[in-house]
Amino acid sequence: MKTGEDRLVQKITQALAFKGRSGFVLGVGDDAALVQPRLGRQLVLTCDWFLEGSHFLRDKHPPDSIGWKCLARAVSDVAAMGGEPRYFLLSLALPETHTGKWLGGFLKGLARAERRLQCWLAGGDTTRNHKILINVTVIGDVPAGRAVLRSGARPGDLIFVSGRLGEAELGLRSLRSGRRVIQSNSSPWVKKHLYPEPRLALGRWLAEKRLATAMMDLSDGLSTDLSRLCAASRVGARIAIDKIPKVELPKTKGRKPLGLTELALHGGDDYELLFAVRPKHAGAVPSSFQGLALSCIGEITRERELILAGPEGIEEKLAAHGWDPF
Amino acid sequence: MKTGEDRLVQKITQALAFKGRSGFVLGVGDDAALVQPRLGRQLVLTCDWFLEGSHFLRDKHPPDSIGWKCLARAVSDVAAMGGEPRYFLLSLALPETHTGKWLGGFLKGLARAERRLQCWLAGGDTTRNHKILINVTVIGDVPAGRAVLRSGARPGDLIFVSGRLGEAELGLRSLRSGRRVIQSNSSPWVKKHLYPEPRLALGRWLAEKRLATAMMDLSDGLSTDLSRLCAASRVGARIAIDKIPKVELPKTKGRKPLGLTELALHGGDDYELLFAVRPKHAGAVPSSFQGLALSCIGEITRERELILAGPEGIEEKLAAHGWDPF
Repeated sequence: MKTGEDRLVQKITQALAFKGRSGFVLGVGDDAALVQPRLGRQLVLTCDWFLEGSHFLRDKHPPDSIGWKCLARAVSDVAAMGGEPRYFLLSLALPETHTGKWLGGFLKGLARAERRLQCWLAGGDTTRNHKILINVTVIGDVPAGRAVLRSGARPGDLIFVSGRLGEAELGLRSLRSGRRVIQSNSSPWVKKHLYPEPRLALGRWLAEKRLATAMMDLSDGLSTDLSRLCAASRVGARIAIDKIPKVELPKTKGRKPLGLTELALHGGDDYELLFAVRPKHAGAVPSSFQGLALSCIGEITRERELILAGPEGIEEKLAAHGWDPF
Repeated sequence: MKTGEDRLVQKITQALAFKGRSGFVLGVGDDAALVQPRLGRQLVLTCDWFLEGSHFLRDKHPPDSIGWKCLARAVSDVAAMGGEPRYFLLSLALPETHTGKWLGGFLKGLARAERRLQCWLAGGDTTRNHKILINVTVIGDVPAGRAVLRSGARPGDLIFVSGRLGEAELGLRSLRSGRRVIQSNSSPWVKKHLYPEPRLALGRWLAEKRLATAMMDLSDGLSTDLSRLCAASRVGARIAIDKIPKVELPKTKGRKPLGLTELALHGGDDYELLFAVRPKHAGAVPSSFQGLALSCIGEITRERELILAGPEGIEEKLAAHGWDPF
């Protein structure tokens, strides 16, 4: 008596749903999922589109990277609040041709992300579509009052970023210029584009220690996202070109310069954390956290504009040139 | 410094987000929303696709009905657990041509649903797409241990439905056969198709009084959804053709019979409630609840099959012929 949709749900559930996980009262298979919220904590709610053509290419991105990344990028928003992911809902629309092998690869990547990020499938919706459409909602939590918002930065705060910026964009470029499905072992930048790691441990640590006054994740590029953080905090920022951690290329003779500064300023999809810290607390921010570099790139200003300071004292206004679908 | 996406989010927020609503710590505009869960309650989590071409037609459905319905149908899953909706996340992908007047109409319908269903925008994601894509996640809650699942029906339980079945499908048919955008005042069936009312009060009352042993909402048609409830409860059902509440047509001469039984058995989108009640409690179920008819249509059986009993004692097996995207 099962419908085609019921069989698809069964396949997804077998790959992803784990019984007996903490907080689950009822998982996939009813009208809705039931979970038990944790005492003393507030819920963190976020959702993200992941659409063929806009966010990934059916013929270029391996299915397991699509599975990994659709969850990782939504979880990154929870990391940016200093929270812990708990559950996710998966909305999946597929062509019938993709309910076999492709779906198997996708679920493998998603199951790996589920375990790595400790964020478990609670439910979702499936339907048929000629393009692959994905929407992921993540429900996380954070100790009450401890979430780090975008709006808390004050003039004088120092601005930090984790990792190196522009790596994922560089990975996307090599993927686009290639002729086939890219293998995950191609290069560290391709790997960062395909399998981004949300900075959960760093976000939680900064929230716990009350070090960050404002925080967000870098998904659309530093120039666009920093302008959003500044708008939310009603401040501006001055950042120094030579302090921004850029892609490190191996030294080879005769290679043309790649515009690494542009990549670092405007490249999207890095899922690193951008955060502000009071000057008196800046000493408590280490130069690396669990192997991840933390760099001070500038400071928050009272003047509501973004200034980019060059190496020889030349200053220019920085416009938001990151990812914008419109 | 605002991007196109920022401006779209602002438009949505101005139409939908209400400050100071209960439980909101932080609404739209940060990496994620923050809400305070209510003590003694479990969370109800559900999401639904609402896609142009599959679930609505751009040229047939008025934009305000798309706004209303995308939230109403997701909230219906919370009603089916006996819960209360609290917040929703809106994922919206639009062609640039639809970010003006069409978006205004859509947001008007959605704002009306928000107030009516007391379910408030907490966040979401927006992007551009050549087709209109909508995904809605609803976060509700229910007193701990009081949710009504699909899996609690036992042999001998009586089967009830609310309202009349097949009305929304009949409305869809007149909409499809029309040449223009259908007006909401066309007919009660068109209205039910365009602006379904989730049965929240009934669902909560049945859960509170512990009357329903199993419950779900009728979204894909009685034959398909009853088979799902029976599968979850590991039982079967026998329902009587002449007890199923069908569309009531005004008497007009010479009208051809419309197959009202088929409509009632397989027509989707009614968002009525289907529930099972122990025989000893059946007397406590009124014939109507707040003006909404409640009809006993049959009983749960030990044999795991669906039987349709005709008016002259003829019985046949009922196959699931409701909505199935695959």
